[in-house]
Amino acid sequence: MPFQPDENDVLAINTIRTLALDTVNKANSGHPGAPMGMAPITHLLFSRFFNCNPENPSYVNRDRFVLSNGHACALQYTLLHLLGYKVSLDDLKQFRQLDSITPGHPEVGVTPGIEVTTGPLGQGFANAVGLAIAQAHLGASFNKDNYALFDNYTYMFTGDGCLMEGVSSEAASLAGHLKLGNLIAIYDDNQISIDGSTEIAFTEDVAKRFEAYDWQVLHVDNGNDDLQAMFEAIEQARAEKHKPTLIRLKTTIGYGSRDQGTHGVHGNPLKADDTVAIKKKFGFDPEQFFVVPEKVREMYASYAKRGAEHEQQWQKLHREYESKYPEEAADIARRIAGKLPDGWEKALPEFKPGDDAVATRKLSEMILGKLSTVVPELVSGSADLTPSNLTRWKNAVDFQPKENGLGDYSGRYIRYGVREHGMGAIANGIAAYGGNLMVPAIGTFLNFVSYAAGAVRLAALSHLRVIWVATHDSIGLGEDGPTHQPIETVAHFRALPNCNVWRPADGNETSASYYVAMTSTRTPSILCLSRQNLNQLKGSSIEKASKGGYVLEEVENADITLVATGSEVGLAVEAAELLGKQGVKARVASLPCWEVFRQQSDDYKLSVLPDGAPILSIEAYTTMGWAEWSHAHMGIDTFGASAPAKAVYKKFGLTGEDVAKRSQKAIDYFKKLGHPVYSPISQQLNI
Amino acid sequence: MPFQPDENDVLAINTIRTLALDTVNKANSGHPGAPMGMAPITHLLFSRFFNCNPENPSYVNRDRFVLSNGHACALQYTLLHLLGYKVSLDDLKQFRQLDSITPGHPEVGVTPGIEVTTGPLGQGFANAVGLAIAQAHLGASFNKDNYALFDNYTYMFTGDGCLMEGVSSEAASLAGHLKLGNLIAIYDDNQISIDGSTEIAFTEDVAKRFEAYDWQVLHVDNGNDDLQAMFEAIEQARAEKHKPTLIRLKTTIGYGSRDQGTHGVHGNPLKADDTVAIKKKFGFDPEQFFVVPEKVREMYASYAKRGAEHEQQWQKLHREYESKYPEEAADIARRIAGKLPDGWEKALPEFKPGDDAVATRKLSEMILGKLSTVVPELVSGSADLTPSNLTRWKNAVDFQPKENGLGDYSGRYIRYGVREHGMGAIANGIAAYGGNLMVPAIGTFLNFVSYAAGAVRLAALSHLRVIWVATHDSIGLGEDGPTHQPIETVAHFRALPNCNVWRPADGNETSASYYVAMTSTRTPSILCLSRQNLNQLKGSSIEKASKGGYVLEEVENADITLVATGSEVGLAVEAAELLGKQGVKARVASLPCWEVFRQQSDDYKLSVLPDGAPILSIEAYTTMGWAEWSHAHMGIDTFGASAPAKAVYKKFGLTGEDVAKRSQKAIDYFKKLGHPVYSPISQQLNI
Repeated sequence: MPFQPDENDVLAINTIRTLALDTVNKANSGHPGAPMGMAPITHLLFSRFFNCNPENPSYVNRDRFVLSNGHACALQYTLLHLLGYKVSLDDLKQFRQLDSITPGHPEVGVTPGIEVTTGPLGQGFANAVGLAIAQAHLGASFNKDNYALFDNYTYMFTGDGCLMEGVSSEAASLAGHLKLGNLIAIYDDNQISIDGSTEIAFTEDVAKRFEAYDWQVLHVDNGNDDLQAMFEAIEQARAEKHKPTLIRLKTTIGYGSRDQGTHGVHGNPLKADDTVAIKKKFGFDPEQFFVVPEKVREMYASYAKRGAEHEQQWQKLHREYESKYPEEAADIARRIAGKLPDGWEKALPEFKPGDDAVATRKLSEMILGKLSTVVPELVSGSADLTPSNLTRWKNAVDFQPKENGLGDYSGRYIRYGVREHGMGAIANGIAAYGGNLMVPAIGTFLNFVSYAAGAVRLAALSHLRVIWVATHDSIGLGEDGPTHQPIETVAHFRALPNCNVWRPADGNETSASYYVAMTSTRTPSILCLSRQNLNQLKGSSIEKASKGGYVLEEVENADITLVATGSEVGLAVEAAELLGKQGVKARVASLPCWEVFRQQSDDYKLSVLPDGAPILSIEAYTTMGWAEWSHAHMGIDTFGASAPAKAVYKKFGLTGEDVAKRSQKAIDYFKKLGHPVYSPISQQLNI
Repeated sequence: MPFQPDENDVLAINTIRTLALDTVNKANSGHPGAPMGMAPITHLLFSRFFNCNPENPSYVNRDRFVLSNGHACALQYTLLHLLGYKVSLDDLKQFRQLDSITPGHPEVGVTPGIEVTTGPLGQGFANAVGLAIAQAHLGASFNKDNYALFDNYTYMFTGDGCLMEGVSSEAASLAGHLKLGNLIAIYDDNQISIDGSTEIAFTEDVAKRFEAYDWQVLHVDNGNDDLQAMFEAIEQARAEKHKPTLIRLKTTIGYGSRDQGTHGVHGNPLKADDTVAIKKKFGFDPEQFFVVPEKVREMYASYAKRGAEHEQQWQKLHREYESKYPEEAADIARRIAGKLPDGWEKALPEFKPGDDAVATRKLSEMILGKLSTVVPELVSGSADLTPSNLTRWKNAVDFQPKENGLGDYSGRYIRYGVREHGMGAIANGIAAYGGNLMVPAIGTFLNFVSYAAGAVRLAALSHLRVIWVATHDSIGLGEDGPTHQPIETVAHFRALPNCNVWRPADGNETSASYYVAMTSTRTPSILCLSRQNLNQLKGSSIEKASKGGYVLEEVENADITLVATGSEVGLAVEAAELLGKQGVKARVASLPCWEVFRQQSDDYKLSVLPDGAPILSIEAYTTMGWAEWSHAHMGIDTFGASAPAKAVYKKFGLTGEDVAKRSQKAIDYFKKLGHPVYSPISQQLNI
């Protein structure tokens, strides 16, 4: 269609500007500058190109929109309102107020139409790469001639801030390598950040950098007025099928304000008289607030209608597809519904005490291999540690652009490169594509999950099922030394709300960790897996471990309970045996996942860690946090050491003998006190 | 001097190769590939250019060398041995063994001659940028005509892995902006990473990217043999005074091995027969190990001698300088000796209860301003949040290249851009320049310190005094919402060994946090500072708060102890008053820094949190970890909410009334138990 912008477009643009302005002013908090500067491109994108159905925000083949510069969310809320999502003018008036659906930064699940949670800079950029990967993969997996069931675009707005962050650099480099033609980033090149002009810290040639990443880079020099140029740029971006596109759009931050083009309009409401002047300039009555002209309502209703029709067409297409490709159609329907394949869990291997001692990373490899055949939505990958993380199943196909001859988009193994933060944020985007369409598993060393802390946090806040395969999980990795040995890592992620940290002790527990990770559809999981071999334990089972904690060895009238995780459970068993020889009765409990254990009934929890005897924990990490479960704690509250694993364990006093000695000390202490011993659980339940 | 490589250079190169090979083989663990590939450039750099004095590793104007690809450390240890640092052949034979000085990755402080701890990829790259900033700053501050006291170069080796990491992208962009001509990065472009060829994930045009950052990029296409080209590249790099240089050096990983050029030689010892063949190829006796030909010993002794003379010359220069510029010379000497100026601490402001309520971030601004005048080595900065972090004192000069007209290299305020991870790792490099030459303070929101987790960890492991000014420290930031409100953050860094986390409650505590941060020369500090105003507390003092914890309000025969940090101390005071009215006697303790409190005597700690009454903690973060100090814990174990601060506090049950209610519950519980109440401290001391 030929592009014919008219005065109604200008009216709509100014409506967006004044609505966003009113929204920020009413809250007396927020960021007016970017919404005012980006109103033209926003209107243009959603009026002329964007496919979505506000009646059904989860319509699967909708275009995805990501506001990576999430502080500009007054813009996005305004737009969602105009398009007819369930975001009312009253909701706009509740911007940044308690329990509103218009929080200070966009949050997926809180506001209809928001795809990913943004605000922490750079995250949205990488999420968009993940959303684009998801489309490319699903398209390659399911589309047939004349049946392009998955062909949506991912549009992303980004500011200077996002582009300074390393996480976006990582994601951009990978997106270029992957030749994601379905990804269109619009860079709000307003040259202003909180500290002032970008001249003070960000003078690189962004366009050239993105060309170096093998992106198509387009330039719009007047993003305030030149609708024609914006239109053409988006068209050209859509036409390029083998490269992602960055549209460098020069805008004036806070366009219309007397302080436009300065950082004064970035992060604070505008002054009252400035607001009046702006409204007058744009032909709006300064005495009226939250005004949407009837014409603009009509226009946006027509865009919404276009979107509804887009979905209807898709439904029709899917029905036809169903008759020709019933199996694939059923798979799509199941995945959209967010269901795992029936009986998938039967693929999880079970183990008996006599079975070989195996490293839990190796057990994870076995499980991923088995799941790969029954759970087609499982997509694995690693940040360049494939032979160490063991994340790639036999005969896996790499997710690669066909052109490089190394795989294709239907491939289910992603080579993320040495980019942990990018990987985490991209995986968030993959998971955010919706339902069970894709379930990402991503590998690195446990210690380097910390590089991706920002992304893990947003997975948790956004309720995304991302599975971190975090191998080399303790000093047990040995020679690589303290730079690679996690100490604080697990405490960090245990303290993060809605994040399941698993540290399985053997084969059954590893199966359990995958079972719960796969079925926890609204929670990311970090599986901490050993480099070294671990014995198959007597008393473990998938069912028991799936409770997050259980009794491995029960003893009546115990003198002490030993509780441990992962590789140290075997140590506890060894110590219990040693204690037995000394006439001390020790129970052993395994606690592979605190978060899941907390969800069990109080009675159950107390049955695992009961009153009546002291509880001693053993874990080769910081002891911080263990007082929730135990009276005394063995661990490592310093950094580790470079040496063969056994030598390191010995150095830090983590041997069966050390545990036995410490047990005796705990028993003696409570004996001397002479009053009943209460489990920390029982105390917490009662205060 | 004209460059004349001869057969002795080749002999030296092959000596490095075989020594590194023997080192890895003896350990049966490590990375032989990069050392063998990078031996030529290493020999060339250290034989022809590098200034250092192995007799005095801390000679202040030495060139700095950073091995960002730290896994290649067998190369670095070999070189340190040859140069005559206190790294013996026996030390090489102890590679990766317990308590050796040759751990699996380079650790500063462990091995003489190691400048920064590397291994976690990308960190060394950014550290090198910090080291270069330090030189530039000190040169601009102290050098005079004919007295170039600070003119060293920083050389850094980097591999593909480092360049994929976002942290190096951030640092590279800033280094280009800052025009750091003293920084020379040598990129080992061997096209191999752990997963195999870089073709699978890293196909960007690295040279072009660095040009976009405004670096000089030089190419050496044969890094295995073409010594002439390597020499010229380094000369050209040194000649460019206004841009950092990246030398793209094509090498063959594992050069000499039958598997050279593959990932097979990256991270595992080579096979015995391969080792034999390599040694034969290089003219070494395969039956002999750790061999250094006499000629090579002589050569390296001459380089060491050159370095010792370099320092002698510097000493002479400094003596002359002293007579002309006694004040500056004394300042340099003081800073080299690692001493703060006498009486500096008198600049710390003290407060009385009647004084204005002020946000701790604002108090921090006041302190930075005062310290700026008495502690010239203090260098502040922010990741683009200057007006929020309040890190820039009045009339500060920006650290900028003169050319851009925005400051100069003598400036003490660094505009890091939105690059938290880069900022943290650069600050590590600044602090690592040595002694008290520079003390970096760096600002961002507390929540986004997590982006820099990798750098904070290395600051702690490396014993670097870096001061994080982490403002907007809780739900008290209000409207920005859960994406910006820290919950797990403080638990994370408290669990990190050797990291002081401060959360001051008022002016005196803020002064105390700076006092201890400045004097903790071997520990990084994170100062968690409020956005909102806090009252000046009755009972606080710099001296008391400097102990990390103290009694704010003492009561005899107390029914309960309330313990809190930061903004919640005021809440505890309010609750104590409320309880008093109900006839309940409540003591109040403040615990601004757990790590420092732990270092106090047992008696002191027990005097603050004594036996005899239940202890209730209040802190607007995760409750994880508090069981070390308290019986019951009030906090937030979910994500926060977007709303004005007061509304958010109320939502999460953090009001004086809530605290009073919970206190009563704790008192009742222990009363019912009917036995003495023991402080968690007393329990931990005894088990």
